[in-house]
Amino acid sequence: MPVIDDFGIEDVEIGDVAPGFVIARADTISIDAWIRTTLSDAGMHETAAIGETIPALGVGQIVESNSSDLAVGDWVYGMMSAQTHALLPAAGLRKLTLQDGITPSDFAGPLNVTGGITAWVGLIRVAQVQPGDVVVVSGAAGAVGSVVVQLAKARGARVIGIAGGPAKCSYLVETLGADIAIDYKTGDLAQQLAQAAPDGVDVFFDNVGGELLDIVLDNLAPAGARIAICGAISQYQNLDDVRGPKLYLRLAERNAMMKGFVVSHYEADYPAAMAEISALIQAGKLTLPEHVVSGIDRFPEALLMLFDGGHLGNLVVRP
Amino acid sequence: MPVIDDFGIEDVEIGDVAPGFVIARADTISIDAWIRTTLSDAGMHETAAIGETIPALGVGQIVESNSSDLAVGDWVYGMMSAQTHALLPAAGLRKLTLQDGITPSDFAGPLNVTGGITAWVGLIRVAQVQPGDVVVVSGAAGAVGSVVVQLAKARGARVIGIAGGPAKCSYLVETLGADIAIDYKTGDLAQQLAQAAPDGVDVFFDNVGGELLDIVLDNLAPAGARIAICGAISQYQNLDDVRGPKLYLRLAERNAMMKGFVVSHYEADYPAAMAEISALIQAGKLTLPEHVVSGIDRFPEALLMLFDGGHLGNLVVRP
Repeated sequence: MPVIDDFGIEDVEIGDVAPGFVIARADTISIDAWIRTTLSDAGMHETAAIGETIPALGVGQIVESNSSDLAVGDWVYGMMSAQTHALLPAAGLRKLTLQDGITPSDFAGPLNVTGGITAWVGLIRVAQVQPGDVVVVSGAAGAVGSVVVQLAKARGARVIGIAGGPAKCSYLVETLGADIAIDYKTGDLAQQLAQAAPDGVDVFFDNVGGELLDIVLDNLAPAGARIAICGAISQYQNLDDVRGPKLYLRLAERNAMMKGFVVSHYEADYPAAMAEISALIQAGKLTLPEHVVSGIDRFPEALLMLFDGGHLGNLVVRP
Repeated sequence: MPVIDDFGIEDVEIGDVAPGFVIARADTISIDAWIRTTLSDAGMHETAAIGETIPALGVGQIVESNSSDLAVGDWVYGMMSAQTHALLPAAGLRKLTLQDGITPSDFAGPLNVTGGITAWVGLIRVAQVQPGDVVVVSGAAGAVGSVVVQLAKARGARVIGIAGGPAKCSYLVETLGADIAIDYKTGDLAQQLAQAAPDGVDVFFDNVGGELLDIVLDNLAPAGARIAICGAISQYQNLDDVRGPKLYLRLAERNAMMKGFVVSHYEADYPAAMAEISALIQAGKLTLPEHVVSGIDRFPEALLMLFDGGHLGNLVVRP
C-alpha cells in the first residue's frame, strides 16, 4: 500500500497552449479505485511511470482555449489528473450540456463514467436486473455502490447493501433507500446474508472481492443468479496474488453466471445510462453525497482514504 | 481419494417385483465424475450413505416387468447404479427409441445426459459457441470433452483440446478432428496455449479447474469470451478447499463471462441436443470410443480410473 511520503507535489508552468489544446481549471476530481491499479505493474490498467502526474477523471472549466471546439467558460469532462489546471487536447474532452437540476459536479459522480455510469452498465447490461430480484451490492456506500442501490430500487428490486460501520449502514437505508444494510464489520456476514436473503441472491454487484465474494457465492439463488464483477478493492494491494473465489463451483451447482466488465466496453450504452440517471436525479430519486477533500495537495490523502473505508458517497478532490 | 478397499461387493436377492416396478439387466454403466462427489459430504450432489449401492447412470434391458409401461426386452436409460440388475420403478426409467445407426450403448455415451448432452448444453446453450470461435476444451479426451470437440468443429469453431499424454493428444486430432491438441503433461501449458490461440480464447469448456482455469483466464480474447464451468475434476478430491481462480479479475478486464451449469437445469433442451448428436452420429461425424471395464466387481477400479486419467473416450462398466 502506498504511503503519503511516496507522493510529491510540484509547481509546473504550463507554457504555451498549442493549437487544438485548451487549459481547464479542475473543479471536481473523482477519486476512483482504478487509479490505485495504475500505481502497480500488475497490468490491470496502464501503469503510471514514477514521476508522472497521477491520472484521474473529473470535471473542469475552460480558462484558456486554442481550439474552436471549446470556449472559455465551457464545462468539460475528462482526464483532469491530479492537478489544479490541465493542459489537454480539446479532442480529449467532452463538453458538458447542463440540464435543469444537474450540476457540473454531477458529471464527476452519478454521471461519471467510472461512477454512476459504471453502476448502470453493471446492474442493467451485465447483471440484467429484473423487477423482484434480490440484489446484493458490496462497497454499497461508495460512489458506484450508492448508485447501484438506488438504480436497483428504481428498477423494482429488493436491495441489500453491504458496507462497513453503522454510519454507512444507516446511510444505505435512510438516504439511499436500501431494504437492508449489512455491516460486514459486525457479526457473522454469512449468517446475516443468509437471513437477509433466505431465498438466495439473484444479482450480486461486486466491488470488493475476496472472502465476501465467496460468502455471496454460497448464498446464490438456486438458479439463474448473475454476478457482475465491477472491481475487487480488497485485492488491489496484492494484484500478484489475488484470492480467487474458492466457491466458484457454486456457479455450476446453481446455474449461475459471473460476468466481468470494463465500462468502456459499453460506450454505446452511455447515452441510455445518462438519460436514466439524469431523470432520476431530476425527479429527486437519486442522490450521491460528495465527500470533498479540499486542496490539490491533499490528493494523496484522498487516494489513501479510498482504501481505508473512511468516506461515504462520492470521494472527490476540489483543488 | 477412495481406495479399492473402501468398496465392498454383495450378492443380494431381488425378491418380488412390486406393482409399477421392473427389473433391468444393466448393459452399459457410465462412469461419471459426479459419482465421485456423492462419496463426500461437500454437498455438491446428494451424499450416498456408507453401505448403499453407488449411484450410476446407464442403459439396461428389461428382464422382468410389473408395469404396463415397459415390456421384457425394452431398452431403458436410468439409474442402473453399480449392480448387474436394477429393481426400479418404471416411472424412473426412460424407454429408448433406437434409430438406424444408434446403438443402446450410445445412450450411455454421446446421448447420455451426463455425456454428450452435457457437452451440447455447455457448448451451445451456456457458452453459445459461434462459427469462427476459438474453443478450448479441458479434459478433452473424456466422454464430455470428446463430444465438445466434435460438436464445436461441426458448428464451425477452431478447436484446441487439452489432455494428458501423447496417446490422448493423437486421439484428439486424428479421431476427433481437433485443430490442435495440447499435452498438459509436457512443456509449459501457458506458453503452448498462447501459441495455439494468439488472438485469445473465445470459449472455454472447463472440466478440470485448478491452475488450468487460471491459464485460460490469462489467455482470454480481449472481449466477449465465455467460460462454461462443467466440472473441476482436479478439485474433487478436496472439495472443502477448492483452488479458486486467482485470475478471475480477467473477467472484468476482458469483459468476459464465466457461467456454470448443471445439465438437468436445461432439460427442455434435451430433445434438440439428442437430435443434433444423433444426426452427427448417423452422418459419421461424431464418434465416442468406449473404454470398457468388464465385470461389475471391477466397478470400483473403473471409478478410480476416471481420476488417474488412464482411460480415453467414454469409460463404462459392462457387468
